[in-house]
Amino acid sequence: MAHDPSNTQRTLTVGLLGLGVVGSGVATLLRDHADEIAGRVGARLEIGPVVVRDVNKSRDVDVAVTDDVSTVVGAEGVDIVVEVMGGIDPARELLTRALKAGQSVVTANKELISTHGAELLTAAQEHSVRLEYEAAVAGAIPIIKPMRESLAGDRVRKVLGILNGTTNYILTRMTEEGAELAPVLADAQALGYAEADPTADVGGHDAAAKAAILASLAFDAHVVRDDVYTEGIMSVTATDIANAKRMGYVIKLLGIAEEHEDASIGVRVHPAWIPTSHPLASIREAYNAIFVEADAAGDLMFYGRGAGSLPTASAVVGDVVTAARAMLAGERLPSVAVADKPIRPVDEEIVQYYLLLDVADEAGVLSRVAATFGDHDVSIKSVWQEGEGDQAQLLLITHAAREGNVRACVEALKDLSDVNAIASSMRVEDRREG
Amino acid sequence: MAHDPSNTQRTLTVGLLGLGVVGSGVATLLRDHADEIAGRVGARLEIGPVVVRDVNKSRDVDVAVTDDVSTVVGAEGVDIVVEVMGGIDPARELLTRALKAGQSVVTANKELISTHGAELLTAAQEHSVRLEYEAAVAGAIPIIKPMRESLAGDRVRKVLGILNGTTNYILTRMTEEGAELAPVLADAQALGYAEADPTADVGGHDAAAKAAILASLAFDAHVVRDDVYTEGIMSVTATDIANAKRMGYVIKLLGIAEEHEDASIGVRVHPAWIPTSHPLASIREAYNAIFVEADAAGDLMFYGRGAGSLPTASAVVGDVVTAARAMLAGERLPSVAVADKPIRPVDEEIVQYYLLLDVADEAGVLSRVAATFGDHDVSIKSVWQEGEGDQAQLLLITHAAREGNVRACVEALKDLSDVNAIASSMRVEDRREG
Ligand SMILES: NC(=O)c1ccc[n+]([C@@H]2O[C@H](COP(=O)([O-])OP(=O)(O)OC[C@H]3O[C@@H](n4cnc5c(N)ncnc54)[C@H](OP(=O)(O)O)[C@@H]3O)[C@@H](O)[C@H]2O)c1
Ligand SMILES: NC(=O)c1ccc[n+]([C@@H]2O[C@H](COP(=O)([O-])OP(=O)(O)OC[C@H]3O[C@@H](n4cnc5c(N)ncnc54)[C@H](OP(=O)(O)O)[C@@H]3O)[C@@H](O)[C@H]2O)c1
Repeated sequence: MAHDPSNTQRTLTVGLLGLGVVGSGVATLLRDHADEIAGRVGARLEIGPVVVRDVNKSRDVDVAVTDDVSTVVGAEGVDIVVEVMGGIDPARELLTRALKAGQSVVTANKELISTHGAELLTAAQEHSVRLEYEAAVAGAIPIIKPMRESLAGDRVRKVLGILNGTTNYILTRMTEEGAELAPVLADAQALGYAEADPTADVGGHDAAAKAAILASLAFDAHVVRDDVYTEGIMSVTATDIANAKRMGYVIKLLGIAEEHEDASIGVRVHPAWIPTSHPLASIREAYNAIFVEADAAGDLMFYGRGAGSLPTASAVVGDVVTAARAMLAGERLPSVAVADKPIRPVDEEIVQYYLLLDVADEAGVLSRVAATFGDHDVSIKSVWQEGEGDQAQLLLITHAAREGNVRACVEALKDLSDVNAIASSMRVEDRREG
Repeated sequence: MAHDPSNTQRTLTVGLLGLGVVGSGVATLLRDHADEIAGRVGARLEIGPVVVRDVNKSRDVDVAVTDDVSTVVGAEGVDIVVEVMGGIDPARELLTRALKAGQSVVTANKELISTHGAELLTAAQEHSVRLEYEAAVAGAIPIIKPMRESLAGDRVRKVLGILNGTTNYILTRMTEEGAELAPVLADAQALGYAEADPTADVGGHDAAAKAAILASLAFDAHVVRDDVYTEGIMSVTATDIANAKRMGYVIKLLGIAEEHEDASIGVRVHPAWIPTSHPLASIREAYNAIFVEADAAGDLMFYGRGAGSLPTASAVVGDVVTAARAMLAGERLPSVAVADKPIRPVDEEIVQYYLLLDVADEAGVLSRVAATFGDHDVSIKSVWQEGEGDQAQLLLITHAAREGNVRACVEALKDLSDVNAIASSMRVEDRREG
């Protein structure tokens, strides 16, 4: 750490809560980029106390650690608190204390922000300090600031995001290799791309937390993780992917947030077909991307790494610089008027569907199936029949219809004697469909 | 304009210089999004005087206009000046006066910022006001703020951008239709995608101004438009595009800014081959995109509309919100330490090349050509010979080599008796080539 006190007016101290994957990246960047950062902030940023759970663990980065949170939280001389320990407790209580003590806070904690973000932001506002969380959504990709600042003169209509790298990696390999999910997931675990317990990723829960944060920002609203309708990718098959491909689509796990005409907000995470011509279709491997549809700006997309030690740390340290500049400028946090907008239940969403039915290859089956769609006000856009006898399948794409109607239609289809099974069903996101 | 003074502590007045393509979009957004903006700023933003050249012209938006700049510049009661008139003079002098009078300034003027940006930023800093110019680079795409703030803890190594919509539209159509440039350009002019005088676009000059601004931001340096080595797209042929395609590349007009190991900065705009697998390769039509390679964050890409009334206005009004918030928060502009980094002459850049030679189909021609490359320290990666007799051509791809050596080699090739002409030469941007 090259110190040259002569060219600095001031030093700000950054305390860390956590020195794991992200925390060690943060410590590395603060140290290795110290000179540039000083030039950009107008003050040097010094690493203060670093709190971990187990002080005896061996560490990659050479910094002194402690297990005493009071050396950071509310501590005299610590200006900015970086929380990279994760989880709701004790992070929630520690950050609340830090904000109340006048410390600015930077966090990468999507769980915490997607559940208790509003209460923490209020505390930050009340105590005239910053609360920044760029790294909590899509890692290295700058999306919080663009949403909050660059688009502040615009109206965001819809946000579609590939928000989870693990699932995008799995779907990419399934698409490119024609493989089923199970072997690809096993391989991803062996390679370290997926956790031993992959539920948070493949179940869509990690993406749901990020979708809630994005929806809150995009629509100046309170949206929490539990407002997000969530389906994971475990039911996606190689057949679904092949069917999609044949018709010009790819399957992605999307987080979708939308403000409707009635000011209700829909937020959902589920696998969906998107046209291969859509910019999100070409996002491969573990990359993330966020596609924004705004009234005036039109379509925007932000692409980059959603996780990893240094990429995530880059976003965290960017936030630290923001907080430091605001502190030096004596700036108060801009307050945003947040409206209580209702959450639209998923049944009320208007969506297009792909359905794959195992049917008996008998005269009249198509007409009985079509009649069932008609009874539920779901209109069919296209249909293919494949195979014969016991192996016959109907592949249907609907027009956009009320989700609740599609679900009722699917239930009614199951009761038809010549429909043996609903082999698959998935939503289609295609703007060409009104 | 729905005014509800009860819920506002304060009103800020925004004066406009210009009410053309961008200015009328700005007036529209300030009016139509007034309520959301008030919620986001914590004060209402009111449109103040609007200055135009010709007060008698009929206007799309219903606002009073004047030709008296003193109603805006330095005027009591005008808090923020939006400059959307374009050109260096009188914009430069007007904005300097506004900043000195304590007004914050928002501009979309790439010409002005890429030539006199440093002097204006200094004036803004000295008078503790904001100077924002998000719309000057890539229209609606948030790139200035992400670069200045989100990446402030990182080190940007290289920026590659599709920075001009007109040329990307032309190259997209040439690529997809196999057409030559002239008819596509004529068509683009008829459709309003290209100006009657297309020089600024097809000559690369518009992109060069944006590349200079990006380089200044990415590397905390002073880079002006004249530092940018610039080649346009007029020499790109259907044959070049077909050759590129055959080898897995597409041709894009790229703005490339790079900081080298010796801290020198290279900035250039020219058509280049990029691999079809590169995220920039799939940017179609008039869209812009900026690809950033950063040490910690890794690869990032920002995509959206680079021009147009409302897209550009979205960026301008986002900046107005930033300036208004800073004003209300009593914030000073963060000062960034800018280093005087040398500009690397284009001859010193290390680049890969595609060359197409018309040759005599004679024994030994390949060995004489290869020897010439060897004499100039340019090593050949791959070579194809096509056609026979008078029609014979050699298509060569070099390894990365010093630009000056390639140029000298090309001159020497012209002197070979069996090389009839250099039919084409273009740089190749491919990271797989060290
Ligand atoms: N990993 C990523 O790529 C990524 C990307 C975006 C966001 N995030 C978010 O960043 C945060 C950190 O993730 P991570 O991957 O860095 O986690 P990690 O590797 O598990 O590190 C957690 C760190 O916090 C410390 N810690 C945990 N609980 C503590 C407690 N109660 N008291 C004191 N110290 C405690 C741990 O101490 P020990 O070292 O002693 O165990 C460890 O140093 C999470 O909110 C995560 O969601 C991560
Ligand atoms: N158009 C785009 O898509 C786009 C995108 C990004 C950035 N920009 C930048 O935005 C700026 C404006 O572009 P534009 O396309 O909106 O230009 P424009 O349509 O030509 O409008 C220019 C406006 O400025 C007024 N004006 C020009 N010179 C003036 C003077 N000396 N005194 C008073 N008023 C004057 C004109 O008045 P009259 O109406 O009376 O002629 C007109 O209203 C330029 O810097 C441009 O580079 C444009």
